[in-house]
Amino acid sequence: MRENDFLSWLSGTVPAHPAVPVGIGDDMAVVRLGAGEALLKIDQCMDRVHVDLRKHTPRDIGVKAVNRCLSDCAAMACRPVSLMISLALPRDGDETLAREVFAGCQAAAAVFNCPIVGGDTGIWDQRLVVTVAALGEMPKGRPPVCRSGARPGDALIVSGELGGSLLWRQGHHMTFVPRIELAQALASKVALHAMMDLSDGLAMDLPRLCAASKVGAMVAGPQLPISPAAERLAARDHLPAGLHALMDGEDYELLFAVAESDLPTLFPAPGAEPFGVRLTRIGTVSEEQNLVLLDANDQQHPWPQGGYEHQ
Amino acid sequence: MRENDFLSWLSGTVPAHPAVPVGIGDDMAVVRLGAGEALLKIDQCMDRVHVDLRKHTPRDIGVKAVNRCLSDCAAMACRPVSLMISLALPRDGDETLAREVFAGCQAAAAVFNCPIVGGDTGIWDQRLVVTVAALGEMPKGRPPVCRSGARPGDALIVSGELGGSLLWRQGHHMTFVPRIELAQALASKVALHAMMDLSDGLAMDLPRLCAASKVGAMVAGPQLPISPAAERLAARDHLPAGLHALMDGEDYELLFAVAESDLPTLFPAPGAEPFGVRLTRIGTVSEEQNLVLLDANDQQHPWPQGGYEHQ
Repeated sequence: MRENDFLSWLSGTVPAHPAVPVGIGDDMAVVRLGAGEALLKIDQCMDRVHVDLRKHTPRDIGVKAVNRCLSDCAAMACRPVSLMISLALPRDGDETLAREVFAGCQAAAAVFNCPIVGGDTGIWDQRLVVTVAALGEMPKGRPPVCRSGARPGDALIVSGELGGSLLWRQGHHMTFVPRIELAQALASKVALHAMMDLSDGLAMDLPRLCAASKVGAMVAGPQLPISPAAERLAARDHLPAGLHALMDGEDYELLFAVAESDLPTLFPAPGAEPFGVRLTRIGTVSEEQNLVLLDANDQQHPWPQGGYEHQ
Repeated sequence: MRENDFLSWLSGTVPAHPAVPVGIGDDMAVVRLGAGEALLKIDQCMDRVHVDLRKHTPRDIGVKAVNRCLSDCAAMACRPVSLMISLALPRDGDETLAREVFAGCQAAAAVFNCPIVGGDTGIWDQRLVVTVAALGEMPKGRPPVCRSGARPGDALIVSGELGGSLLWRQGHHMTFVPRIELAQALASKVALHAMMDLSDGLAMDLPRLCAASKVGAMVAGPQLPISPAAERLAARDHLPAGLHALMDGEDYELLFAVAESDLPTLFPAPGAEPFGVRLTRIGTVSEEQNLVLLDANDQQHPWPQGGYEHQ
């Protein structure tokens, strides 16, 4: 397929959107924003680094590429406004590869009514790269939720369950839905001091939030919400499931800090899920810039450095 | 170099910018806009497709990747507000590859005081991809200049000179400066009905502008401004230099349509260059949706289909 063929197909297949006066086909797209602030992110999915065409369908790869980027929108509690997709396509891919990847991108974007407004394609004798750029905006009157606002005494909360995401062909890392709705709901009910999405594992990501906020944290190891996938993995490799919950990457769950006074809104009664998603308090923000893992007896253990990183 | 090392280096090396309250290092960047419309573009530079690491320095590749994207900002007559850069890096590249590519990106962006607000890197055993996403906005009160507004009777103008861009290691395609300033100056003085930048050659690009505007064009072949590079090329390959001006790609000059009544502003006197750049009227927009090449005797010739396309 030649570039022009693909771009023609693309501009034909992307539906009109009221917020996009100029879509694919001109030199740039034009997107209407409600406010004077734009939130921006770029993120790439590389074959055999983040995904694997030998195991994953092109469509699933498109879905994941978009959802990885939308997970960052969730992390800021912003609303995705538009996406752009750039494809580096292997020459030996059949004609449908680009269309299938793009169909996956479009399906994932449509979940959040987010238009795709730009595309670029190039064909080469190397492997697939899917690059996604997201534009977002905050609902009126709400500031973006950065990593830098956590305060000593804040409770640290995670959504969902952690660990084992990467270990199966159709694991959580391919099938997750970005926590956009949850982030919006949380931001409307409590004051989110700081938030991020967990992409490299709690062990690596929590230090980033703490560094940005110039704080430390005490995390209660036995409180970590462990995913069934981490349990199955632990049964196989005989490492503790809780270690997988700490160290494995690509959970795409939210990690956030709120004041103690907001806890009754998040946890009104034992077992209640007022936001429709399991939330777990895993620890507390501390003033000392140091991370500590607590065991069941409140004994302190050093923070496990590292976690998952694409090299 | 690991991803985190690079991103740390990046966030340290990118200077603060008053329009960027949240820069590299959070889940998304936050960029202030003056108005409620964002202009967006994504564009990739692939090794041995658009550039060649065997011939071009990493820094020059970074410059070109950014300038290609900024040329689209010029084409809409918009002001670039921010850029994001994504790098797929060959594992056998030495540690400085990413830094040199990025230094080139930053140098090119700095020419227009355009902050780089986002980055992603991944390392693999394949070749280099540099993907650039641009956010732009229009000066207050000015609409974006699309491809779709050309009207029958409009004059067709090109900036600079055409042809031969690609044929030398340090040809125009590596060294051009995007026509941002020219586009701003033009938009402030005349009514630009339609505009685009010439990336695939006039023979392929003019039909795109005409198709978007639902018009045709008559182009005077002998009027085409031929670059010295096209002349040198013609001396070597014995094809007419004018054919190179029509067919060669990567001119990154502006092609635009204005009413006849605006011509005195563009051409106040023979040889005058009121915008500091050579402008040439190459033809006229016609109602009939058909492209025609006129010779020195006003005889009509069929439009040379094709031109340059990255396959």
